[in-house]
Amino acid sequence: MSSEPTVTRRELIKGAAAGGMVVAAAGALSGCAPVAPSNLPEKWDLEADVVIVGLGGAGAAAAIEAARAGAKVLVVERMPVGGGSTVLCGGLIYMGGGTPLQTATGFEDSIENMYEYMLAAAGEGADPELIKIYCEKSPGLYDWLVDLGVPFKESYIPGKYAAVPTDDGLAYTGNEMQADYKTVATPVPRGHHVKGLDHTGKVLYPPLLAGVEAAGAEIYYEASAQRLVLDHDGRIVGVVVEIDGVEEYIKAGKGVVLCAGGFAANKEMVAQHCPQYLRSQFLVGTKTDDGHGIRMGQGAGGDLRMMGDAFAYSGIYEFGEALVKGILVDDRGRRFIGEDNYGSWVGRALIQGHPVSYVIVDQSIWDEIPEQGRAYIAEHIKYLGPADSIAELARVADINLELLENTVRFYNERAAKGEDPECSKDPHYLVPLEKGPFYAINFPAAFAWFFTTGGLKTSGKAEVLNPFGQPVPGLYAAGRNAFGVSAQQYPGSGTSVGDGLTFGRIAGSNVAALEPWS
Amino acid sequence: MSSEPTVTRRELIKGAAAGGMVVAAAGALSGCAPVAPSNLPEKWDLEADVVIVGLGGAGAAAAIEAARAGAKVLVVERMPVGGGSTVLCGGLIYMGGGTPLQTATGFEDSIENMYEYMLAAAGEGADPELIKIYCEKSPGLYDWLVDLGVPFKESYIPGKYAAVPTDDGLAYTGNEMQADYKTVATPVPRGHHVKGLDHTGKVLYPPLLAGVEAAGAEIYYEASAQRLVLDHDGRIVGVVVEIDGVEEYIKAGKGVVLCAGGFAANKEMVAQHCPQYLRSQFLVGTKTDDGHGIRMGQGAGGDLRMMGDAFAYSGIYEFGEALVKGILVDDRGRRFIGEDNYGSWVGRALIQGHPVSYVIVDQSIWDEIPEQGRAYIAEHIKYLGPADSIAELARVADINLELLENTVRFYNERAAKGEDPECSKDPHYLVPLEKGPFYAINFPAAFAWFFTTGGLKTSGKAEVLNPFGQPVPGLYAAGRNAFGVSAQQYPGSGTSVGDGLTFGRIAGSNVAALEPWS
Repeated sequence: MSSEPTVTRRELIKGAAAGGMVVAAAGALSGCAPVAPSNLPEKWDLEADVVIVGLGGAGAAAAIEAARAGAKVLVVERMPVGGGSTVLCGGLIYMGGGTPLQTATGFEDSIENMYEYMLAAAGEGADPELIKIYCEKSPGLYDWLVDLGVPFKESYIPGKYAAVPTDDGLAYTGNEMQADYKTVATPVPRGHHVKGLDHTGKVLYPPLLAGVEAAGAEIYYEASAQRLVLDHDGRIVGVVVEIDGVEEYIKAGKGVVLCAGGFAANKEMVAQHCPQYLRSQFLVGTKTDDGHGIRMGQGAGGDLRMMGDAFAYSGIYEFGEALVKGILVDDRGRRFIGEDNYGSWVGRALIQGHPVSYVIVDQSIWDEIPEQGRAYIAEHIKYLGPADSIAELARVADINLELLENTVRFYNERAAKGEDPECSKDPHYLVPLEKGPFYAINFPAAFAWFFTTGGLKTSGKAEVLNPFGQPVPGLYAAGRNAFGVSAQQYPGSGTSVGDGLTFGRIAGSNVAALEPWS
Repeated sequence: MSSEPTVTRRELIKGAAAGGMVVAAAGALSGCAPVAPSNLPEKWDLEADVVIVGLGGAGAAAAIEAARAGAKVLVVERMPVGGGSTVLCGGLIYMGGGTPLQTATGFEDSIENMYEYMLAAAGEGADPELIKIYCEKSPGLYDWLVDLGVPFKESYIPGKYAAVPTDDGLAYTGNEMQADYKTVATPVPRGHHVKGLDHTGKVLYPPLLAGVEAAGAEIYYEASAQRLVLDHDGRIVGVVVEIDGVEEYIKAGKGVVLCAGGFAANKEMVAQHCPQYLRSQFLVGTKTDDGHGIRMGQGAGGDLRMMGDAFAYSGIYEFGEALVKGILVDDRGRRFIGEDNYGSWVGRALIQGHPVSYVIVDQSIWDEIPEQGRAYIAEHIKYLGPADSIAELARVADINLELLENTVRFYNERAAKGEDPECSKDPHYLVPLEKGPFYAINFPAAFAWFFTTGGLKTSGKAEVLNPFGQPVPGLYAAGRNAFGVSAQQYPGSGTSVGDGLTFGRIAGSNVAALEPWS
């Protein structure tokens, strides 16, 4: 067999979002195809010290820090409103190292403990320096958010969540308790959940925006950055921005920060860099995540990093923990990953090698799924069954009968002893699947939620680096315009927002501290 | 479990090369760290129409075509001799579509049949246009090589080879006959083997070099390209080259072709783009495969493509077909890929998810391995056993006993019926492993042979493209400086050399046809 099978039964979930993330059908773009950088214009239409491209979480954080440091900041945002992916997110921010909320809820964390987990969980290609900075800045980020007025409830909700279903403030949102990681670092929850119900990115963003305005940054909406302006030495000196259909040359006396999001909405770029992720049908983000910021940075000399990997999320614990007691099998009938893994581990495994897969459960597990979850599965996800036997289920799902029976038999024998030598699922979830009827719930790669994590290569100061390891003078990037702290894996829900805020703040501080070029 | 386990028992093969490829311990480099491009100099030290960076197969092909078209061609090569990876290769060139050699040996192929196989086998992210051009140019490439004096014997050797052990001219070198591909296109052999014994890249290269010289191109050896020279409009107008410790500005009146190899020898770049491939300990290529050509192209505005995937080869049929009758299991005792797959499918599976693995065989298979192969395994690869039972073998190899016994039992029951529902191995190789003693032969990811396939994004004309889809004026790339026809997979041995020659020729023809910029 090939290790890259083709999706043969791709189906579309109709309707709304499962779990904690939202697909945005954002407004139409204002016709911006970024092009190669320009040289110095004869005159500038607008002038600022710092120009920030994109007003999501990263752009807001950069704008606040740069403006608070005294720089004249101008933010350009393509959409009629700001927020980007941040306003759509589940309201989780991955923070730790001993935040006041961790302490108040009785958890003891340290910078070192957080670092050890994140470095292991971020996968090969992770940058120890960037992760170290992320962890060191984490307790301070919590205080900074609270100062801005972002609300967190001082409470912990047990369990593991990609999206927190209550208004509680702290939850496990990653793989901290999974067998391969709980030995690396002491498990503690780090998913800091902005107070409120149902996708509290919408609660997180307004205080950020208010902070940008209070700090005195000027915002241009429906202002579409077209290209960077370079002087003859390759220094970034401004941005050409289309405002009301007119190209305006905006001088950036100190520098430019690119915070314009990832490239998941650009199928051509996905095909160019990480084509397997085309299997996902669900974008986490907006239509403006078309890679224009990344390409503007490349055009000005920026290097790329880890463009071949991305975030794909398929959480088996999406409907409570019931389904985790089932077994995830591919279309040959083989298990391939512990069902209790954080959804990005599962999503990656589906995307990369097992695009057609099912969660097999028996009646007792089926009955444990909350009513609302069963209805959702029936309407949107689809399932096969009930079938009186595993053999009958294999037949209707078109899975090899002998392999599936062998898989179930082997699993059941060990599960009865509380063991899972095949995939190391936690004993808590090990229950033999013995009594029918049985169900096969669709769990294809197509249903994974996807955004990109590769991007411009940056330093710990959020400077964009060229292919020779040197900073592109005057150019910074944060959020999904940059490769951040997630490499082949994603440490947990809230990492991308945390990364955007952390390195957005760093970019804003550093660009404001530059000497003006003229 | 994580889908990215760590190599816990990495061992080093001591000594020479298995199979068809050679690791070159090339001479020391002349201290060249490429840097950002320069602007126009006050005067040029040397002048040519076309400057070609690198004299491997791609550079030679480009030089021949450009010089034959009447251009004044100057080739700069960092090493004291040319050849690059091409001179070190197994002497295979993947060609088809009805070459005279295919016809003479009784095989009927067509451009379309070749295209269908290559497109399917190159994996997601493959470029249909580039593959179509490759196939269309293939019969002509064969004639061109024969005209240059490259010898091919009109004979076919049955079997499948990454490296042909005889002087025969044609062999299966890819996955054409594997279950997933033989239904896509009619299997025919396309590995055209340069006549001779033992790595006939050394037979292939001299006629190419003679062709370069005969066409009138001038070659500078130990000449290290440092950076490209751009005019103010971003056109490539020359190259700065270090020759005898002095930087010389070489004018390229028409353009520059980058043919300087991949980046497998640059661990920092591998970590930046495809970190899992750091698991391989064996570079196919030379120390000059440090990505300097790719970075020079980036610095001049070139985009990248498919940097996250690479070639990793681990051929189970390396010692004849005996081992293919064994089963490949990881350190949990699970099979994960058909043992009869071409070695790059196997290598990729090892690198990406099963870094600690073994081929399990019984005594009868062991006895089938040629004496020389057994000696090589004993000395360099290492094995565990003989063990009287699978249980004993699991114990000494530290593989989960229950899983391995289950795997072997399931495999044996189906193999006895000529079936392999788990991995679709060809029935020809299916023999139950029933009678001990048993052996576990080391087959870790660390032993995979590795080179990079991602590179600069190019058009069908071999123009380097910028991130906005436009050609960088005056800049071409071929060979492993460019992303070519292999995406997530490698169609078969001889593809990279074929790709370098094909697009090297195209680059040479196209650059020579440009109008001079001054």
